[in-house]
Amino acid sequence: MKNIYIIGVGLIGGSLAIDIKQNNPEVVIHGISRKEATLNEALSLDLIDKKATLEDIDNADLVIISIPVDATVKLLPTILDKISDSGLVVDAGSTKLDICKVIENHPKRRNFLAMHPIAGTEHSGPSAAISGLFKGKTNIVCEVEKTAFKLQEKALKLFVDIGMRIRYMNPEAHDKHIAYMSHLSHISSFMLGKTVIEKEKNERDIFDMAGSGFASTVRLAKSSPEMWTPIFKQNKENVIETLEEYINNLKKFKELMEKDDFEEVYNEMKNTNHIKQILNGIA
Amino acid sequence: MKNIYIIGVGLIGGSLAIDIKQNNPEVVIHGISRKEATLNEALSLDLIDKKATLEDIDNADLVIISIPVDATVKLLPTILDKISDSGLVVDAGSTKLDICKVIENHPKRRNFLAMHPIAGTEHSGPSAAISGLFKGKTNIVCEVEKTAFKLQEKALKLFVDIGMRIRYMNPEAHDKHIAYMSHLSHISSFMLGKTVIEKEKNERDIFDMAGSGFASTVRLAKSSPEMWTPIFKQNKENVIETLEEYINNLKKFKELMEKDDFEEVYNEMKNTNHIKQILNGIA
Repeated sequence: MKNIYIIGVGLIGGSLAIDIKQNNPEVVIHGISRKEATLNEALSLDLIDKKATLEDIDNADLVIISIPVDATVKLLPTILDKISDSGLVVDAGSTKLDICKVIENHPKRRNFLAMHPIAGTEHSGPSAAISGLFKGKTNIVCEVEKTAFKLQEKALKLFVDIGMRIRYMNPEAHDKHIAYMSHLSHISSFMLGKTVIEKEKNERDIFDMAGSGFASTVRLAKSSPEMWTPIFKQNKENVIETLEEYINNLKKFKELMEKDDFEEVYNEMKNTNHIKQILNGIA
Repeated sequence: MKNIYIIGVGLIGGSLAIDIKQNNPEVVIHGISRKEATLNEALSLDLIDKKATLEDIDNADLVIISIPVDATVKLLPTILDKISDSGLVVDAGSTKLDICKVIENHPKRRNFLAMHPIAGTEHSGPSAAISGLFKGKTNIVCEVEKTAFKLQEKALKLFVDIGMRIRYMNPEAHDKHIAYMSHLSHISSFMLGKTVIEKEKNERDIFDMAGSGFASTVRLAKSSPEMWTPIFKQNKENVIETLEEYINNLKKFKELMEKDDFEEVYNEMKNTNHIKQILNGIA
């Protein structure tokens, strides 16, 4: 592998660039971005070796797409058109169904691998890229059987080498479960932040009262709306289902409080407490 | 100050014991607990110097109450009965109104100081006690004018010395604002945990998909139901109000998704994003 093109050099693309370059110093990392300023920043941070455009990717061994998922759906067919027979395109999007669908009948389907590396922080942009972000994390690969075997093998080695565990899942199951394990957390956090800001907007120094518990629960409300709006749009049905269940559970908790049934309030919490064991091992 | 009694030697009481002892090696820390096993654990962890009972506190210079807030309301009058004229009782409860009320006409009201040190983790019990927990954190003091001046002065020095900022507030304002800044976060986290566990209970290995975002948002669901049930009970009206607003914001978000108004979904998130700036400085 010699030429790797990364489309979108923010948190995910930039962090992949750092780790891949460290393991494979012979590789040339080409950066592609809509915004010249982002590319210049990525270059000055040494995330990429060269600036490039979509016109250049015919000599790519690997193209990594790490941009908002609506842009991926739009661009992916054109990118696949341009890739050579021995090149591979992978994406790192947080949804998988729409992305897999848009190229299901593409003549170069076997040159594409759908992935979701489950790693990140609440920050975004090239300056958010950090080394070691993917160590010990899960990379979900969808429809692996539709990708040429030699190409999958090469790509998966790259991701295993930066510390990832590979897990296989179909796109429907991915989108359904990830709505619970990730998308809902983002909405709960954004709406918690909104509720508190609305209430306390005239008393800014009230935020002195915030402890580390509030900071942790509301952390994801710092996430990028540019990335998250298209995720919610593509995974609309699943996300709405999780929201319905979450709202119902909150309502039930409120009703228990209203009728002074604190024995059941206690049980609600006690029964959820074993999340301790479940979460063991997650950073 | 020579004899300090700590009633409840768990996360808060135990962590206070560590820091106070470090700054004041001459002090003897006496531990009091309902459970003999807890006291033995605190002793073997060197959190306390001696085991004691409520009968012993007539020679206390300072009594720190760090037990569930319903137990504090029940015990506080008896403890104040027993304290000497030169002794001070403080509590560390997460609610303040009911606690201040129960002793408002007590003949020894001036020997009590109501506090809420805003610090903690999701763990509990003596083994959860850590040094430095209070460094840079806020200690909210209520009705300071009702405490004898010399006694406040002595106690506040102790808390400033372990790194706390002292903030003054009346009990009503404390309970109202803390419902937003802390109590709501705990419910949002418990119900998030519940929603995900309910859905995924038959697919435990789905939790492999959880990233650090989910772990952070659900962290408080590990908290102790024994501590939190009485907090929600005492702060019922305020907590119900926060829950109503939170549920309404979630419903509105869901409705925007249902009618495909993703421009507004974007705005909802963008408008909450400045929580970044607000949270700057919180651990």
